[in-house]
Amino acid sequence: MMSVSLKELASLVGGQVCGDGELQLSGAATIRDAKAGEITLADSPQLAKQLAGCAASAVVVPGGFQPQGIDCLVVDHVHGAFARIVAHFRPPRPARRVGISPGAHISSSARLGSGVDIHAAATIGDDVEIGDGAVVHAGVRIMAGCRIGKQVVLFPNVVLYENTVIGDQSIVHAGAVIGAYGFGYEPIAGRHQLSSQLGWVEIGAQVEIGAGSTIDRGTYGPTIVGEGTKVDNQVQIGHNCRIGRHNILCSQVGIAGSCTTGDYVMMAGQVGLADHLTIGDRAQLGAQAGVMRNIPSDAVHTGSPSFPMRDYMMQIAALARLPEMRKQVRNLQRAVAQIVGEVRPRDEQEAA
Amino acid sequence: MMSVSLKELASLVGGQVCGDGELQLSGAATIRDAKAGEITLADSPQLAKQLAGCAASAVVVPGGFQPQGIDCLVVDHVHGAFARIVAHFRPPRPARRVGISPGAHISSSARLGSGVDIHAAATIGDDVEIGDGAVVHAGVRIMAGCRIGKQVVLFPNVVLYENTVIGDQSIVHAGAVIGAYGFGYEPIAGRHQLSSQLGWVEIGAQVEIGAGSTIDRGTYGPTIVGEGTKVDNQVQIGHNCRIGRHNILCSQVGIAGSCTTGDYVMMAGQVGLADHLTIGDRAQLGAQAGVMRNIPSDAVHTGSPSFPMRDYMMQIAALARLPEMRKQVRNLQRAVAQIVGEVRPRDEQEAA
Amino acid sequence: MMSVSLKELASLVGGQVCGDGELQLSGAATIRDAKAGEITLADSPQLAKQLAGCAASAVVVPGGFQPQGIDCLVVDHVHGAFARIVAHFRPPRPARRVGISPGAHISSSARLGSGVDIHAAATIGDDVEIGDGAVVHAGVRIMAGCRIGKQVVLFPNVVLYENTVIGDQSIVHAGAVIGAYGFGYEPIAGRHQLSSQLGWVEIGAQVEIGAGSTIDRGTYGPTIVGEGTKVDNQVQIGHNCRIGRHNILCSQVGIAGSCTTGDYVMMAGQVGLADHLTIGDRAQLGAQAGVMRNIPSDAVHTGSPSFPMRDYMMQIAALARLPEMRKQVRNLQRAVAQIVGEVRPRDEQEAA
Repeated sequence: MMSVSLKELASLVGGQVCGDGELQLSGAATIRDAKAGEITLADSPQLAKQLAGCAASAVVVPGGFQPQGIDCLVVDHVHGAFARIVAHFRPPRPARRVGISPGAHISSSARLGSGVDIHAAATIGDDVEIGDGAVVHAGVRIMAGCRIGKQVVLFPNVVLYENTVIGDQSIVHAGAVIGAYGFGYEPIAGRHQLSSQLGWVEIGAQVEIGAGSTIDRGTYGPTIVGEGTKVDNQVQIGHNCRIGRHNILCSQVGIAGSCTTGDYVMMAGQVGLADHLTIGDRAQLGAQAGVMRNIPSDAVHTGSPSFPMRDYMMQIAALARLPEMRKQVRNLQRAVAQIVGEVRPRDEQEAA
Repeated sequence: MMSVSLKELASLVGGQVCGDGELQLSGAATIRDAKAGEITLADSPQLAKQLAGCAASAVVVPGGFQPQGIDCLVVDHVHGAFARIVAHFRPPRPARRVGISPGAHISSSARLGSGVDIHAAATIGDDVEIGDGAVVHAGVRIMAGCRIGKQVVLFPNVVLYENTVIGDQSIVHAGAVIGAYGFGYEPIAGRHQLSSQLGWVEIGAQVEIGAGSTIDRGTYGPTIVGEGTKVDNQVQIGHNCRIGRHNILCSQVGIAGSCTTGDYVMMAGQVGLADHLTIGDRAQLGAQAGVMRNIPSDAVHTGSPSFPMRDYMMQIAALARLPEMRKQVRNLQRAVAQIVGEVRPRDEQEAA
Repeated sequence: MMSVSLKELASLVGGQVCGDGELQLSGAATIRDAKAGEITLADSPQLAKQLAGCAASAVVVPGGFQPQGIDCLVVDHVHGAFARIVAHFRPPRPARRVGISPGAHISSSARLGSGVDIHAAATIGDDVEIGDGAVVHAGVRIMAGCRIGKQVVLFPNVVLYENTVIGDQSIVHAGAVIGAYGFGYEPIAGRHQLSSQLGWVEIGAQVEIGAGSTIDRGTYGPTIVGEGTKVDNQVQIGHNCRIGRHNILCSQVGIAGSCTTGDYVMMAGQVGLADHLTIGDRAQLGAQAGVMRNIPSDAVHTGSPSFPMRDYMMQIAALARLPEMRKQVRNLQRAVAQIVGEVRPRDEQEAA
């Protein structure tokens, strides 16, 4: 493997050497993995102890954190600089332009922008529009009437049902399914009758949707995910939902039908929402929260059923002491019974 | 966009105008979205307030609900009528018959019924049978020996492992996987040894299975999903399960191996069942319930671990008051200590 | 259907007949399903009652369990023997060797070992290496730079992003996605900026990964799943995780980024882990546990938030009695108030 001096790396990322600029480095890795001869990163003084136990020969640090006994590269943005260094040692494979693969199946009525890549085994339905510079990976299924924005990336085996709209520069990861039927049924004569499925899904610009996530179409109109919202893997968004802008929805979150969220809402992993709820701007929901009520803006809730974080913490603390409290209550009962026996005649006690 | 009179819509859906039949309408949308010039729906008087804040020019309502200040179209079935109106303004794309696509990969031993559609990039294995009028979308994988009923719809990228049986008129949404190996292991010499995988999956008629759901094959025989049962997205059904008829399993439900459910069971989102449980007819399980025991017929359980709904509600109420109760107990301890100090000599107290 | 004598089955599996060796059997099924004329299995005396209610004509049992009123086949390993009997009556379809399907899309720079099967509609990217005897089913997407070990099986529609490494004899089930982007964002000017995605995923040997599971790539280096670990359906493993060897991760488990687990860790269904946690060797986490802290080796935790099993059980017992305890506290308050009224003058009480 090639070797690079610390000075050269400093020049690459616009940082300053603090130590031996001639030090030769052969790779870059995180603290957990870095070996002698490699450079690592430490974005906070809290990592000083872990860093001391790491074999790395140099470290990228922010200004103001100068760990002892190791040559440093001081930069403004630790992660940005380290990413460039990693990419220098292990250059990412350039995305190969494939153009329109002859192995793709494309309707003659589809309209493709310029600079579009359609990989082999993808299928593109009737009247689909695909924006300039979009990439459609292998095995993607775009059903009739979808509109895909510019520079969108659809990773392998993504499925878009009819009339799905994807905003510019959005990314959909492998296996995600957008636009399947909403889960609404009416009981008729002992059978579950599926509701209307006349709606569709609209994804805003710069949205990212994780692998295996599912977003159902609306009943009569759109299910919406707002601009800039990031959705992790295996998230479920039910029919008719309106997810706001710049939300963060972590893995395995489940949002039932017809919910509305504001902007900058955050949901940790495995959160569940009942249907028809409204979640205010910047609200935060803790992991595994089970939300049954509307949540106001800026609130932080958690628990199942969910409570404001402060109440929840007190409940959990109290819950942890419940067994002890049961003992205390029993002791009190005994003490009171004894007192009653001492201060009152027996017949009065029995009446109580 | 074309415009239609309220009177014409009434005639389309067999309803009665209450107001101006000549009113011209240009579209249909739900209360949240409807603009001036459009018609909306309100299926219950509880929506009167929301309706009053909506810009819609007309509304579809059931008999007996006559909102003020808006022209009405009174019908027997609000949702059925509104669906027809929506479809009138925005006709759904007719499913295009594709027949047997030359881009599909079909074993010569497969037997296809009449009127079958097999889209491009689908693969059909040896000895597969597909019933009349079934639709196999792009990228569906049907492995050897499967039997697919009449008018079944398999959406894109569905995977059916060997010998899966799908009943008539069932629908499987994109990315669902039916018949993968059951998750059973025996520890042998420090390694996990996979159990036998000699079984298969049998799906009844008129079943619907959501996007990304997974149903594992049985160990020696079938895993079964009964007729008319509806399964939402991202549901997991373990090996050897017997799901009854007309169940409703909401999104992200997880059912461990060898469970049995009766008919008309309902499970809300993210419910989890331990293995080998029996759930009685018409039982209902609340969202995020963690079920560790058998549930009798008609019972309503929730919580993790789950309890009968009534007990759970009392627990939750008590839990919310736990911090307060801790204070009460501390106050009682103090009061009792004081009383004891007053009524007993000091040495007796210490003995207690 | 062919018929076989109990004696012949005994000879097939190396067991001993206890009863009528000439008994003719026409099939094999589990206790729940077995009909007259069929053989079933009972691996423990605890099944004696269920067996008594089963119509089966014979049963495979372990030594030391001799049920009454039914002919027995006594063997050392009940499940192994029964599997052979089931396979005798219903021989599993032999995996058909397909070689390199002309319907697959394979980069000219890919290197395929000997005896490899690549099914139709699979796509294999640049510089991919596939080991001897591996099977790549239909619709699998292997992106550039992946390395697939010997005798690996990739079921239909699996997606491997760039540079994924899969160890020998591992199995990945349908629809699983390995190597998608990690879910890490930095807030910049009101937008969420995606972290670096320079890492990859490394799966050890003899790992099994369930249908629809997702494992994200590391930020700068690998996400790792250790040798022999078994991952059920719809499990999520976040970026930078290090899953140890021989773990058992049940369905719908969610592990946030940068977690580390030891060897032989077990997680039941729907467990969730917060990020950056360390779980010790042989730790066990109960179903739906919500883990927020590191867990030491050999510990058994459950609950959300999780507690040691013993503490959790006491909490749940106490929780179930909370409503009753609330009454006890109210009664105590009343009793103490009455005592205070009796032993103290009124003005003292009010001061208290």
